[in-house]
Amino acid sequence: MDITTRVRGLLGSREGFVSLHEPEFLGEEEALVLDCIRSGWVSSVGQYVDRFEVEIAAACGAAHGVAVVNGTAALEVALRVVGVMPGDEVLVPSLTFIATANATHHLGAVPHFVDAESRTLGLDPAALRAHLERISDCRDGVTVNAQTGRKLAAVVPMHVFGHPVDMDSLADVARDFDIPMVEDAAESLGSRLGERPCGSLARVAALSFNGNKILTTGGGGAVVTDDPDMAKHAKHLSTTAKVPHKWAFHHNEIGYNYRMPNLNAALGVAQLAQLGTRLVQKRALAQRYIDAFTGAEGVAVFAERRGTTANYWLNTLVLSANMAAGRDTVLEVLNGAGLMARPIWEPLHTLPIYARCPRADLPVTADLAARIVNVPSSAKLSGNQA
Amino acid sequence: MDITTRVRGLLGSREGFVSLHEPEFLGEEEALVLDCIRSGWVSSVGQYVDRFEVEIAAACGAAHGVAVVNGTAALEVALRVVGVMPGDEVLVPSLTFIATANATHHLGAVPHFVDAESRTLGLDPAALRAHLERISDCRDGVTVNAQTGRKLAAVVPMHVFGHPVDMDSLADVARDFDIPMVEDAAESLGSRLGERPCGSLARVAALSFNGNKILTTGGGGAVVTDDPDMAKHAKHLSTTAKVPHKWAFHHNEIGYNYRMPNLNAALGVAQLAQLGTRLVQKRALAQRYIDAFTGAEGVAVFAERRGTTANYWLNTLVLSANMAAGRDTVLEVLNGAGLMARPIWEPLHTLPIYARCPRADLPVTADLAARIVNVPSSAKLSGNQA
Repeated sequence: MDITTRVRGLLGSREGFVSLHEPEFLGEEEALVLDCIRSGWVSSVGQYVDRFEVEIAAACGAAHGVAVVNGTAALEVALRVVGVMPGDEVLVPSLTFIATANATHHLGAVPHFVDAESRTLGLDPAALRAHLERISDCRDGVTVNAQTGRKLAAVVPMHVFGHPVDMDSLADVARDFDIPMVEDAAESLGSRLGERPCGSLARVAALSFNGNKILTTGGGGAVVTDDPDMAKHAKHLSTTAKVPHKWAFHHNEIGYNYRMPNLNAALGVAQLAQLGTRLVQKRALAQRYIDAFTGAEGVAVFAERRGTTANYWLNTLVLSANMAAGRDTVLEVLNGAGLMARPIWEPLHTLPIYARCPRADLPVTADLAARIVNVPSSAKLSGNQA
Repeated sequence: MDITTRVRGLLGSREGFVSLHEPEFLGEEEALVLDCIRSGWVSSVGQYVDRFEVEIAAACGAAHGVAVVNGTAALEVALRVVGVMPGDEVLVPSLTFIATANATHHLGAVPHFVDAESRTLGLDPAALRAHLERISDCRDGVTVNAQTGRKLAAVVPMHVFGHPVDMDSLADVARDFDIPMVEDAAESLGSRLGERPCGSLARVAALSFNGNKILTTGGGGAVVTDDPDMAKHAKHLSTTAKVPHKWAFHHNEIGYNYRMPNLNAALGVAQLAQLGTRLVQKRALAQRYIDAFTGAEGVAVFAERRGTTANYWLNTLVLSANMAAGRDTVLEVLNGAGLMARPIWEPLHTLPIYARCPRADLPVTADLAARIVNVPSSAKLSGNQA
C-alpha cells in the first residue's frame, strides 16, 4: 500500500487541499482581541503582553518570559544575552530552519555548522564533542576555533519538529568546553524531556508563534529563562535599550525594536489556554500516523524517543536509504493528491549564502536531508475535536 | 502667561493625564480584525497584508508597498535594497530617533552623523554638501569617506515630527555625490512637500505604524517605492529570501523574518481609511497651539514652512536661546500638571554607543536639542471629532 493511500486513509475524506499546519481559534481569541482594541493599548505595552509573558514562561516551566516579534528575533536576543558578540562563532545545526543561522549572522557572528543524529534529528552530542576536541582551543580562558581564532560563543540545539534533542549530553559537552547554550525551542512548545518542558533546558530559550506553529500570535516569539538578569537584559534589548527616565531618550546599548504588540499578545493569551487540548490532539494524530504506517515497507513515522514527550508539531516520514532516490516522487504524488507535503530544510551549509562558514563533517545531516517528508499535521485532523 | 497655562487653556478641561499621542479606533478596526481571525489567516500571508500594501503605497503616492514588522525593519530593508553593505557608511541625522542609526548598525554599516537645520529640524542640504566636499573622495567611481576609506552608501533624511525636510536640495547633493537616498518617513505619513506626499520623495522610503504614530497597526512599518525591482527585492528580503518553489527551502540571500502579520494589517486597513480625517484633526490642533502661543515670549510653536503641509504628528515648542536653560523646568512643570511633554531625542552622536562614529560638525543639532519640547498631540484633542 503506497504512502498516499495510507495518509489519505488515516485523514479520512476531506474536501480540498490539506495544509501542513493550520491555526485554530477555538477559545477567547475574538473576545480578547476586541478587548485589546477597545482598551486603546494595541502596541508595544499593555496588559496582554504582561500576561502572555507570565503565561508563556509558566508553560515552559521557566520564571521569566519576554515577548518579541518572532522566533528569529527571540534567537537574536537570546544570543545577545549569553554574550555572543560580532565576530564570534555560534555552533548551530545545519539541519534547521534558516532562522537559526540568520539570527547569528544578523548580530555579526558566524554560524558554525555541526551534525545531527538520526535518533533525535537534532544536534549529536558525540559528534559535537569529537568536533570540538579536534578544532577548539582554550586561549586566555576563552574557547576558540583554533582554525579561525574566533571565540566559540554559544551552541544552539534545536528540537526538530518538536522532538527533544539529547540536551543532557549536549549540556555535558557545553560545560566541558565552557560554551553557553541557547535552546532553540521554536518548534517544541509543549514537548518534554522526561518531565522537563522544552524551553527550560538551557539558561535561555527562544520560542516562535508564527502562524504555522502549535499556537500562534499572528507573528511572534519569546525569550524564556529562569535567570532574572537575562530576562531583564532581554527585555531591555528588545525595547531599543532605552534607559528608564522621566523623559530623556537615552539608550545605553544598541538594541532592537522587537517587542510583541499587545494586539498579538491578546491572541496569544487566548491560544495558550488551548495548549493542553492541542497537545492531546496532536499526539492523537501522530498515533494515527504511527498506526497507519506500521508494517509499511521503506518508510517509518519518526516517533518520540523513550523518555521524551513530543508535541508532534509536524508528523515526519523517514524513508529508508533505498527509497531516498524516490523522495521527490513521494512529494510530487502527495502534493498532487491535495495532501501538503514538504521535505526537511536544505542543510544550511549547502546554501551558497552559508557555504563558506566553518563546519564539522555532516554525514548524518546529508543523509537525513534526503529522506524526510513532512505530512499534514493540523490538530483538527486528529478527528478528536475539543 | 506661562507655557502650562497656554497648553491647558487650549486643551480645555480634561480628566487625568493627557498623553503625547494616543491611537484611536473609530472605523472598521473591530470588524476587520474579527474577519481576519475568522478567516484563519492571521500570520504572514493574507488578504489584509495585500490590501494594506496597495493602500499604504497609494497613500504615499507610490506604486508599491511592502508591509513589515516595524519602522526599524523597514529602514533596514530599504537600506539593503539601495545596496548598503556591511562596512559601508550611511549618512544620517544625529537629531533623529535611534532607529535610523540602529537599522544602519544592524546591517553591519556605520552611521555617519550630519547636521540639522532650524528651518526644517531635518538634514541641512548646505551643511551636507560642505561636509561631503571636505571629507569625501571618489575612488574607482565610488564615493568614499576619505578619512575611513569606507563607501558612503546612502543618505537618510528624516522628516522630524512630520515636517518635510528640504528633499529637493538634498536630492541635488545626493546626485552630485552619487549617493542613493532613503527617505525615513516614519513620522510623516500624510505630510507633503508641495503636492508630493512624504514617502514618495526618494527612490525608496520607510514608514512606521507604531502605537504612537498617526495611524497604527499595533506594531508595523512599510517600505514604499515606485521601483518594481526594489519592491520585489524588499519583499524577498523581508520573507527570509526564500526562492519560490513547489516545496524546496532554498534561500538565495541572508534575509529577514520581517513580514507584517495579517492580523496587524487588518487593523492597518481600517486605520488607513481614517487618515484624511485624522490629518484634518491634527492640523486643527496644531493651529490651536499656534494661536495659543502667538505673542508668547521666549517660546514659539514650530509651524510648517511655506510650500509644505505637515501632518503635525507631534506639536513642537521651540524655546528661545535664553530660555534653553529652563527646558527641564518646562518639562517638569508640564508633566507635573498631567500634560505629557518630552524633549527631542538626545543627539545620537552624544550617546556613548555611537560616540565613536564619524560625524560632521553638529552645531545646529546641539542647539535644537536643548530647546525643543513636544506637547500633547492626539487627534482627539482637536475637539474636532469625526
